[in-house]
Amino acid sequence: MYKINENYLKLPGSYLFSTIGKKVTAYTAAHPEKSIIRLGIGDVTQPLAPAIIEAMHSAVDEMGSAETFRGYAPDLGYEFLRNAIAEGDYRLRGADIKADEIFVSDGAKCDSGNIQEIFSTDNRIAVCDPVYPVYVDTNVMAGRTGTYDPATEMWSDIIYMPCLAENGFAPELPKETPDLIYLCFPNNPTGSAVTKAQLQIWVDYANRTGAVIIYDAAYEAYISEENVPHTIYECEGARSCAIELKSFSKNAGFTGVRLGYTVIPKDLKCGDISLHALWARRHGTKYNGAPYIIQRAGEAVYSDAGKAQLKKQIAYYMKNAKTIREGLETAGYTVSGGVNAPYIWLKTPENMTSWEFFDYLLERAGVVGTPGSGFGPSGEGYFRLTAFGSYENTLAALERIKQI
Amino acid sequence: MYKINENYLKLPGSYLFSTIGKKVTAYTAAHPEKSIIRLGIGDVTQPLAPAIIEAMHSAVDEMGSAETFRGYAPDLGYEFLRNAIAEGDYRLRGADIKADEIFVSDGAKCDSGNIQEIFSTDNRIAVCDPVYPVYVDTNVMAGRTGTYDPATEMWSDIIYMPCLAENGFAPELPKETPDLIYLCFPNNPTGSAVTKAQLQIWVDYANRTGAVIIYDAAYEAYISEENVPHTIYECEGARSCAIELKSFSKNAGFTGVRLGYTVIPKDLKCGDISLHALWARRHGTKYNGAPYIIQRAGEAVYSDAGKAQLKKQIAYYMKNAKTIREGLETAGYTVSGGVNAPYIWLKTPENMTSWEFFDYLLERAGVVGTPGSGFGPSGEGYFRLTAFGSYENTLAALERIKQI
Repeated sequence: MYKINENYLKLPGSYLFSTIGKKVTAYTAAHPEKSIIRLGIGDVTQPLAPAIIEAMHSAVDEMGSAETFRGYAPDLGYEFLRNAIAEGDYRLRGADIKADEIFVSDGAKCDSGNIQEIFSTDNRIAVCDPVYPVYVDTNVMAGRTGTYDPATEMWSDIIYMPCLAENGFAPELPKETPDLIYLCFPNNPTGSAVTKAQLQIWVDYANRTGAVIIYDAAYEAYISEENVPHTIYECEGARSCAIELKSFSKNAGFTGVRLGYTVIPKDLKCGDISLHALWARRHGTKYNGAPYIIQRAGEAVYSDAGKAQLKKQIAYYMKNAKTIREGLETAGYTVSGGVNAPYIWLKTPENMTSWEFFDYLLERAGVVGTPGSGFGPSGEGYFRLTAFGSYENTLAALERIKQI
Repeated sequence: MYKINENYLKLPGSYLFSTIGKKVTAYTAAHPEKSIIRLGIGDVTQPLAPAIIEAMHSAVDEMGSAETFRGYAPDLGYEFLRNAIAEGDYRLRGADIKADEIFVSDGAKCDSGNIQEIFSTDNRIAVCDPVYPVYVDTNVMAGRTGTYDPATEMWSDIIYMPCLAENGFAPELPKETPDLIYLCFPNNPTGSAVTKAQLQIWVDYANRTGAVIIYDAAYEAYISEENVPHTIYECEGARSCAIELKSFSKNAGFTGVRLGYTVIPKDLKCGDISLHALWARRHGTKYNGAPYIIQRAGEAVYSDAGKAQLKKQIAYYMKNAKTIREGLETAGYTVSGGVNAPYIWLKTPENMTSWEFFDYLLERAGVVGTPGSGFGPSGEGYFRLTAFGSYENTLAALERIKQI
């Protein structure tokens, strides 16, 4: 008789955003007359930029003609896209990453969930708290997290790095030494960023202790301040300790298009074993490449027209972020984020729990956000709003919140 | 200090098709004057059908307009596609599968590699021999296969089910009882098929012994004979023991488009644990859906125009299969397959090994095929050719082979 992976049974409840979705569906079913504004899940709303649409139409036509049809993509992604990434995201920033160190994928969620597979199950992971749930849940599934304590909402074998108002929502070096360190800056969910000097401390720490940093830079495009690094490879020594994950979801509105990439420098080795080779083996064995049409869409992100159009799109969302931040402050909330990231992190008023505030905001203002506690125990008492709505909805949401 | 997943180091050599690719690249570099015909990897060559191209253009336009833009897809796939699959691939065949038992993905390679994750690592797997390498390699990575013996090219903890000329390339029930049974019919690589009565024996066996069948039906569209089942759910009792994997790669030419799906009936349970729920949790946590544009392309496969156009495409490839089969027979080879599958499986002449024949065919005829031994020890002495080339190339390849 077959047996299942028992680790799955340890997972408490369902995936955060599924839970929110179900709660909202139930509420709208009960109150069909209420208009709901969704500033919860980090899903974009602006249409794809014209340069991207054009590139996709052209690629679709290629797929319809025998002379230009493309079958299986190269395992690690098409050269045209990997070259564009190496140039646009690395060389132009002075970071030394070659095209053949870039692995194109269908998104950073998949990559951030799958990357742990190339590591031993007895590695100890460290995560920021609060944190993007995928890092934790996928390690639970792999059996790397020990037992769950419902009272503290913590796993026995995870090293938690609290990110609170007290430390400016920037993690401190952990007291116990981890093997794998998940970092995400600009941060989801807190919207905080770290300076290059702060990130350098982590790179040095990882190199000193023999840890690997899994660096999620999905929100890099929202950085507005000068001293905030756009890639971990701006830091010295990162090539020997860091894996970087990037998404096209937020910089180019690809949440429904699906494209991302992972960088593993060839200097990153465990003894004489190259992590690049392990990930290449995984890609070749379990993955068949991102669609040709989508890779052409990704290439258009780096074209002059694409860059200009996307700059406007980012500015649009960051205007929303400013609207939310300033609106909440006017309404008397304590807020952070929204300067280098599309997320605003607010302290719930009057000691409400995160889920109490979720219900309060849904019922009183018809606004959906994300409870901070869904991102980890140190998120309790906080709440996330995203800048990805339309400007009109964002304005309307803030008007409603001010009037509660 | 972090540690890697040591299971990766057990994998002998690189992924089969990467090895072939490198060999061909080296050969063409050394012999730039030689024209090479590739009948190796199962990659299609015909352009996408007009109905599919039209659907994609329309979906691209939707993504470029604020009113019709789509962000994150529903976790398990869009209703429009799941409904089309449930109707076209199941209800019309008299198989009882509901739309909410279908999980849309970016391809059957990923699904066939990932599905093992929801099972315990101490489950015992059984595979046909020869077999699609992904089933074995992904179980090696998960640590489920024991040790590798280079002499026999077998893993200590895998149950091999030899498929040889002697048993018509159909596996026999294994002597040891497995927990997970990988079956693929029509078969890759041998091109063989089983009748509904033969498959029923496997379903009954799995239900009796408490095993799960992972049924890969990627080549279903190539079935030409009446008594060959198009889905395992044509067999009685399959809902309580079988997971089915399907690909759009071969029936609609989507190798570069990337779309597939997995069926897990809600009756499939381990005690009171639903495998459907486990896979839904994995999808929700590690995956973000197939691109909207690609899901619309998938829907077009089931439209009247799409079905008519794809029927012609399949017929085109099956004409190639006939050309190969009959050409090889004329040249004195012993062949099978090619009737219900796009693969032709031939016995190498004069006791050549599979790789010897690979080199012989490449050097003497400029034709690339796949060595049978790359699919498992019982593939030694066999060789796979695919019907996915152009008709002109297929004809030319057979002329060359006849002239050796």
